[in-house]
Amino acid sequence: MPKLEPYRKALDYSYCLGVFPALKLLEARPACATRLLLNPDGERNEGVSKLRARCAELGIREEEAARVLERVSRKENCYAALVFNKFSDELDAKNNHVVLHNISDSGNLGTILRTLLGFGLRDIAIIRPAVDAFDPHALRSSMGALFFHRIRYFDSFEEYRTLYPDHMLYPFMLDGAIELDAACAARREPYALIFGNEASGLPHEFSQMGQSVVIPHNNLIDSLNLGVAASIGAYAFTHTHISD
Amino acid sequence: MPKLEPYRKALDYSYCLGVFPALKLLEARPACATRLLLNPDGERNEGVSKLRARCAELGIREEEAARVLERVSRKENCYAALVFNKFSDELDAKNNHVVLHNISDSGNLGTILRTLLGFGLRDIAIIRPAVDAFDPHALRSSMGALFFHRIRYFDSFEEYRTLYPDHMLYPFMLDGAIELDAACAARREPYALIFGNEASGLPHEFSQMGQSVVIPHNNLIDSLNLGVAASIGAYAFTHTHISD
Repeated sequence: MPKLEPYRKALDYSYCLGVFPALKLLEARPACATRLLLNPDGERNEGVSKLRARCAELGIREEEAARVLERVSRKENCYAALVFNKFSDELDAKNNHVVLHNISDSGNLGTILRTLLGFGLRDIAIIRPAVDAFDPHALRSSMGALFFHRIRYFDSFEEYRTLYPDHMLYPFMLDGAIELDAACAARREPYALIFGNEASGLPHEFSQMGQSVVIPHNNLIDSLNLGVAASIGAYAFTHTHISD
Repeated sequence: MPKLEPYRKALDYSYCLGVFPALKLLEARPACATRLLLNPDGERNEGVSKLRARCAELGIREEEAARVLERVSRKENCYAALVFNKFSDELDAKNNHVVLHNISDSGNLGTILRTLLGFGLRDIAIIRPAVDAFDPHALRSSMGALFFHRIRYFDSFEEYRTLYPDHMLYPFMLDGAIELDAACAARREPYALIFGNEASGLPHEFSQMGQSVVIPHNNLIDSLNLGVAASIGAYAFTHTHISD
């Protein structure tokens, strides 16, 4: 077996740390998993036993690798991890999409992926420059949600748009033209909900695309946190609203 | 001036790190601020100049304290901080409340406080054991939102309830009896939205109180992140919904 390297973006494999996310990986993308890494301290752990049994069924080789686990997980205690091959998907052109434009924080990305999965939004475009979704820490904060999404990176929004020209675009902006409730009430499917960078939001030109949307809030805060905005937007677009 | 100590919960003062949160503190609670700490590296920073001018108007003494700043902010670069006296408020009995039961993560608390402020929910009860809202890092992730809230800690939910017996209770639970949209449509004011611990949620007995609420999601995820759930709940309860 080749020697495992410390994680970096350029590798074609990554590490899925922790029993719960690893089980999610095996559920969603068993063919991507290549090696099960174990810490002897976790030998008696119930979750680890379940994970080992599942790997045995799938023919995934297990190995003791306490040092690799310690290094990849940094300080956090980690009983098990799966090594897996990175993947890239075609988005489903018939489905609703979420476009994350220049998202930069791995914790934010993980939380957003988990929320979107729960609301059934599984086709995710990420526009570079952006955080690496395969970073073990982004993965961990997604609780394994990444594996259930179709994820694709693009070098520009135009590249995304060329492939998927028919989606109704809903860029979320502080100066969006209409409020979220009104946008949801008149929504056209399939749609693409578009969210910008944590600090700078979406570039101004997005206000000319499709129907820009604002989540109204008072002026005691400058903006909502990106994860919060994406979660509220996804909730509103995927749930039927009842009038007061 | 007394020597400044490393932050700990038992101190009756805390540190508000960073120019933006410090200006928020002076806007909301100028009487709490006692000392302005400066790092000489920030001398030419525009925000620092604004902060110094405001402190001069208010008679708040400034001092060079690069070491204290370095220690309190840990690794992060910080040009300025205000030392301020901690406060505790009566909640406004006529307003809607948010109750955070055993919340344990300071980043979560900060993000939630920022969101709730933006949606006009300013009366916050925190039920112990819980994270310290005055911890400099919780404060920083709230972007200073803490100072605009009325915040009060309680040793138990009963202690809160005894003081505010009339609020309609809406505990958010995975097995809540009705869905969020239905709860919002029939909401009674003043209300208290109640959210539980990050890992364990609310104790089972809350299902017998008021009207328990669930934010519906599919079973591909176990639960929504606490900050996400609180944000969606707060958004839904404070905005009028338009029917499809």
